[in-house]
Amino acid sequence: MIAEIIAAGSEMLTPHRLDTNSLFMTEQLNDLGVSVAFKSVVGDSLDHLTSAARVALSRADIVLFSGGLGPTRDDLTREAVAAALTIELERREDLMVMLRERYAARGIVMPPNNAQQADVLSGAEVLPNPNGSAVGQYLVTFLGHLPRIVVLLPGPPKELKPLFTDEVKPRLAARLPSSHLRRRLLRMALIPESQVDARCAPIYEQYPDVETTILAGSAEIQLHFVSAKPSADEAQARVDDVAGRVEAEMDDAVFSAQGESLEEIVLLHLGMRGLTLATVESCTGGLLAERITATPGCSRTFLGGAVTYTDALKTSMADVPASLLAEHGAVSEPVARALAEGIRHRTGASVGVSTTGLAGPAGASSGPDQGKPVGRVYIAVAGLGAQTEVRELTLTGDRERIRLWTTQHALELIRRLLL
Amino acid sequence: MIAEIIAAGSEMLTPHRLDTNSLFMTEQLNDLGVSVAFKSVVGDSLDHLTSAARVALSRADIVLFSGGLGPTRDDLTREAVAAALTIELERREDLMVMLRERYAARGIVMPPNNAQQADVLSGAEVLPNPNGSAVGQYLVTFLGHLPRIVVLLPGPPKELKPLFTDEVKPRLAARLPSSHLRRRLLRMALIPESQVDARCAPIYEQYPDVETTILAGSAEIQLHFVSAKPSADEAQARVDDVAGRVEAEMDDAVFSAQGESLEEIVLLHLGMRGLTLATVESCTGGLLAERITATPGCSRTFLGGAVTYTDALKTSMADVPASLLAEHGAVSEPVARALAEGIRHRTGASVGVSTTGLAGPAGASSGPDQGKPVGRVYIAVAGLGAQTEVRELTLTGDRERIRLWTTQHALELIRRLLL
Repeated sequence: MIAEIIAAGSEMLTPHRLDTNSLFMTEQLNDLGVSVAFKSVVGDSLDHLTSAARVALSRADIVLFSGGLGPTRDDLTREAVAAALTIELERREDLMVMLRERYAARGIVMPPNNAQQADVLSGAEVLPNPNGSAVGQYLVTFLGHLPRIVVLLPGPPKELKPLFTDEVKPRLAARLPSSHLRRRLLRMALIPESQVDARCAPIYEQYPDVETTILAGSAEIQLHFVSAKPSADEAQARVDDVAGRVEAEMDDAVFSAQGESLEEIVLLHLGMRGLTLATVESCTGGLLAERITATPGCSRTFLGGAVTYTDALKTSMADVPASLLAEHGAVSEPVARALAEGIRHRTGASVGVSTTGLAGPAGASSGPDQGKPVGRVYIAVAGLGAQTEVRELTLTGDRERIRLWTTQHALELIRRLLL
Repeated sequence: MIAEIIAAGSEMLTPHRLDTNSLFMTEQLNDLGVSVAFKSVVGDSLDHLTSAARVALSRADIVLFSGGLGPTRDDLTREAVAAALTIELERREDLMVMLRERYAARGIVMPPNNAQQADVLSGAEVLPNPNGSAVGQYLVTFLGHLPRIVVLLPGPPKELKPLFTDEVKPRLAARLPSSHLRRRLLRMALIPESQVDARCAPIYEQYPDVETTILAGSAEIQLHFVSAKPSADEAQARVDDVAGRVEAEMDDAVFSAQGESLEEIVLLHLGMRGLTLATVESCTGGLLAERITATPGCSRTFLGGAVTYTDALKTSMADVPASLLAEHGAVSEPVARALAEGIRHRTGASVGVSTTGLAGPAGASSGPDQGKPVGRVYIAVAGLGAQTEVRELTLTGDRERIRLWTTQHALELIRRLLL
């Protein structure tokens, strides 16, 4: 069984918008053992949509359309699919009543063009949409002698997602051979993809029935394992088996064996030991605290911290001696150390972590940091072990990348010191 | 002239990856006056790729492929396009020499399957790739009597982008009627899309030659205007004209008339008045400082601040009286006010801004904040005007959304107080 997803909407053919609904639908379809073989984006043109629908119906068992079900002249999905299948649209009186009631409830008369939202592909089931006026449609049909399932869903994710989960998925599941899908996700920070692959490929290649995907990005490598089996236990056993062997091979490089984020893991390990954390950031400007506090429940472990963009604040908020700043510059090992120790002392946290560096695009134009390269960063962790740990980093890339990698190094240093 | 973009790669048919190259290529093609009518993603299957190539060549003047040009068995774009065009691939000896030299430079013998990277569509120009081993290809041909331009580019963005800019764009420009494209972007914060559209549509509908796109998201509305004309001055005049009239209609709701971010605008206005800024964040946990410091050059205006996740830190880092916290709770107007005034005083900044609220998912389980709803947020700005300005917000959505909207409200409040 293969599926094709067609997103209708000219805005997704601009340089500004991507179709993200397809990621959600792909995951849901994969859960049912259905692969997505093609994804397309088509603008609001009847010719183009009809052509795309025809091509999709000729090559995929299940064709899902998102968008183009609204009340405007640009909303042409219903019409295009009917044309591609050479079937009629039927105006449903019960939907007309519902549409008129929606408008009446707001005290307005329904504009005439809204009536097209009551048009349903002949033979299709109507999928009620609690979050909008455009209903979904589900049609089991034939194209010549080929069995086809056609699904029409509204484009807004908060309408599409519940419609897919509540209405489409059960209908598809009932028609598909029973298959149970289980996933595992291993995550590793700050390690080259080539190194992960060289060490892990000999393992996962022994599991041809487990789909393995390596994704690199945002200073981490993710290894996704998916197994589909007639029984859930069997599928779970296969992904657990390969994940377990890869984890043993990569040892402590794997920070998360169940998909948790690095910040969640750091908070978890600190919390288990009853430790608290405070941050003081220069070059990362709040990003480290932001990542930590994006995790619900972080307040049990994270106390807070400071963003010290000036030398004066490094002194007044984290007790870094002015003489140290004058002698070594803010971007230096002694200042990173003093920041981590200072914020730990000031906040009373068990652990203090600091970042200071040159995120670019320009370096320091005067003072003791002048001449240090963009990408030079120091991080320090105080309170784990007998002495404060400091690391010098030389990072590449733009400001955003340098800031992100700095926070990743800081979190990973805490994690490794906790092992 | 219409274009179609096909991204080859099974990883983009998983729930984890989107094709983002197409956004860049769309923008570049739009610059040349070419619209993108279809975008597709196809997996690494020769049948599927050939089918997609055939369909695309039948309906688009320019067909651009990204990905599938590497050395592995999964890299099938060359073969599929040759099959769709029913032309031959020619193994180019000069490319074989280059490939062997790349390997020799690393001291390894070239694996035999790499030779496919020397296969070129019969009649195509080779586009040299300084950043990788896969060259691009550019073919001007006919499908029956239909003129077609076919472009093959490697998938990694750092290879694709320069190849497009340096090799593809000039070739396309030379074949296309001269057209100059100019863009304007107006940005507005915290205003409903429907309200923007109701007030602006009567204006921009008078400019049928200007393409107008309204995008809503991340607590802001963007209005994009694009005009393509034979002369650059004429195109500029048209987008300036419509943008000027929309800006006059929306008045001070428009924070940015040249595309700048809200944080850039706030820093700019503060800087022009010689003012400095400090932040103190509770519920946003560093996100406000992070947004501000993502802007290069922010250190001229932004001094730093504090992330005070606990009551104790609100007192020790921003001088909020413990009695105030005990009486009103951290999520309260008096505490927001005291935080903004406290951080201003502590840092010596001209302006202090604070955030405190319940970002969820859970509310306070004890103490004076118990019973306040998730989404209740207070922001305050001290130092602009005679008294500290405080706003109570009731935000909806998840933790991420509440935090983002809080920072947007805080920045927008500063901007409006500076007007």
